[in-house]
Amino acid sequence: MKQKQQPKKILLAHGGGGQLTDELIRRYFLPRFKNDVLAELTDSAKLNLDSGSICFTTDSYVVKPLFFNGGDIGKLAVCGTINDLAVAGSKPVALVLSLIIEEGFELDLLEKILDSIGKTAKANNVSIVGGDTKTVETGAADGIFINTAGVGVRFAESAFDKIRAGDKIILSGTIGDHGMTILSQREGIKFQSLLKSDCAALAELTSRLFNAKGVKFMRDPTRGGLAATLNEITKSTRLSIEINQADIPISPAVQAAADMLGLDVLNIANEGKFVAVISAKSTDKCLRICKGSKLGKKASVIGTVTETSDVPIVEMITRIGGRRIVPMPYGRELPRIC
Amino acid sequence: MKQKQQPKKILLAHGGGGQLTDELIRRYFLPRFKNDVLAELTDSAKLNLDSGSICFTTDSYVVKPLFFNGGDIGKLAVCGTINDLAVAGSKPVALVLSLIIEEGFELDLLEKILDSIGKTAKANNVSIVGGDTKTVETGAADGIFINTAGVGVRFAESAFDKIRAGDKIILSGTIGDHGMTILSQREGIKFQSLLKSDCAALAELTSRLFNAKGVKFMRDPTRGGLAATLNEITKSTRLSIEINQADIPISPAVQAAADMLGLDVLNIANEGKFVAVISAKSTDKCLRICKGSKLGKKASVIGTVTETSDVPIVEMITRIGGRRIVPMPYGRELPRIC
Repeated sequence: MKQKQQPKKILLAHGGGGQLTDELIRRYFLPRFKNDVLAELTDSAKLNLDSGSICFTTDSYVVKPLFFNGGDIGKLAVCGTINDLAVAGSKPVALVLSLIIEEGFELDLLEKILDSIGKTAKANNVSIVGGDTKTVETGAADGIFINTAGVGVRFAESAFDKIRAGDKIILSGTIGDHGMTILSQREGIKFQSLLKSDCAALAELTSRLFNAKGVKFMRDPTRGGLAATLNEITKSTRLSIEINQADIPISPAVQAAADMLGLDVLNIANEGKFVAVISAKSTDKCLRICKGSKLGKKASVIGTVTETSDVPIVEMITRIGGRRIVPMPYGRELPRIC
Repeated sequence: MKQKQQPKKILLAHGGGGQLTDELIRRYFLPRFKNDVLAELTDSAKLNLDSGSICFTTDSYVVKPLFFNGGDIGKLAVCGTINDLAVAGSKPVALVLSLIIEEGFELDLLEKILDSIGKTAKANNVSIVGGDTKTVETGAADGIFINTAGVGVRFAESAFDKIRAGDKIILSGTIGDHGMTILSQREGIKFQSLLKSDCAALAELTSRLFNAKGVKFMRDPTRGGLAATLNEITKSTRLSIEINQADIPISPAVQAAADMLGLDVLNIANEGKFVAVISAKSTDKCLRICKGSKLGKKASVIGTVTETSDVPIVEMITRIGGRRIVPMPYGRELPRIC
């Protein structure tokens, strides 16, 4: 058989399950993600977890552009899935990685993305234990889409039904950073260099909070932003929420970019923040834990869960003392933000 | 707020994490996949498995066309992931589902696909416990891509390192049916109505085989076909394999279609078959178990694992008594077959 030249771009055959798929796995994946489970190359990863009480989650990532200030699609795909496991009260253990790649995609871009995935996973003690690569013809996908599914071992409980009127709401830091960074880069806004995605893995901080007790529910306000997360809480608990605008941390550059594009920062995606609903008596303790951590140093108590006699709503006391309803965003603002 | 008309096509906002995403989940997903875990709508599904010894796998599905004789992308996405868990020696328990959908995709097609996913999952006692939906602009994806990741509880061991010279190879039925069905439909071959994908979930049959003991390794020969699976075995074990062409079941329509398109059926994808490596003394028993099952009634002992003094190879004794090497396919034959 003729010796084939090393391709520099993704070919359809890279997803064909033959020689080129095998080479992709052995040359590009295994060295970056090396661990005993992955090295077995069986159809499923075999894991021995401490317990059968697990969290299990999935997310696909279609962010555009693939590389942005503060991260890239690879880092995002690892952090996003770690965070979904973390806020649900589990310790993230293992991820599986599935790529859909357009024919002609540069292999050196793929390498950068895989480097980022490997580095982020390692930094967070999470193993990439399995994967899949599919290729599609040029024009049938936009570069690369990544799916990460994850498994974590549960050690705490985050549940809507633990939430009661009087509970406090902690936001772990500034909002809108991720969404405004992506959008500003896409729109070519001049001061985009001032913006940086908050893309980060929260598991260490969330585990310290859960272990301190008092946390009833936690969620990361990604697509739909803070507004969506708070509305999901009211919808599922039938309780209302009152928040104070003055207590919501927003960086000036994010606010300026949002104003310029006519967007409400409350609806903008975050990728390294959480909203935690906490019993009133544990609030100070939990806020201190947040503030003692790099990822939570701008944490703030932004509001309170309240009884409602009518339809539950999210209401915001504005800086000038007025009140406005914060609706569930429709969803149109920001396609391909993550 | 103005009452919005029900959209008939996927909008970008369906993936925006706001009202429309919520509606998609509550109207389209929850009723079809209903179970207590999913209904919680938390960031991660919470599972209580019998054991922490699990299998974990992922696959993305980009098959084209979306609907084909014998199945559709939804059925494929459930069966494929069940099979990866099953051949690894686990009982499939839960799947998470992630969709990437192109703006403008017909919602009634989505409903058909979700129906198929729900039906196939239910028939196989597997729960859809979580999910994610992303939307991309028209032209940024080809209709719909589906990722399913799955978790199963391990009860048996399938491992390359258990394989020894003298072990027998059982193939569970005819090969090439899935790949040739897809390709014939795409190429508009006249007798395509005679072809039908073998798309099926194998977990019940594989569990009976594993429980009968004697099974050392199992894999489903999907992309790359039987040739890829056998070559993966030789590569990982450093042993050779000898197979008999006359013993490999192939339906006449599949053979005719492959001949017409100049393809080798050994390289064509299957979606409801397995290759099992079995100790010689357990072969008859295992073959009987296969033949007693609907999905294994055409099972056949196709060859033997052999010692090698040199580079391990897959060798086929042809119908006329000659010998030829079965190489690892390059991978170019069949893009978007699954």
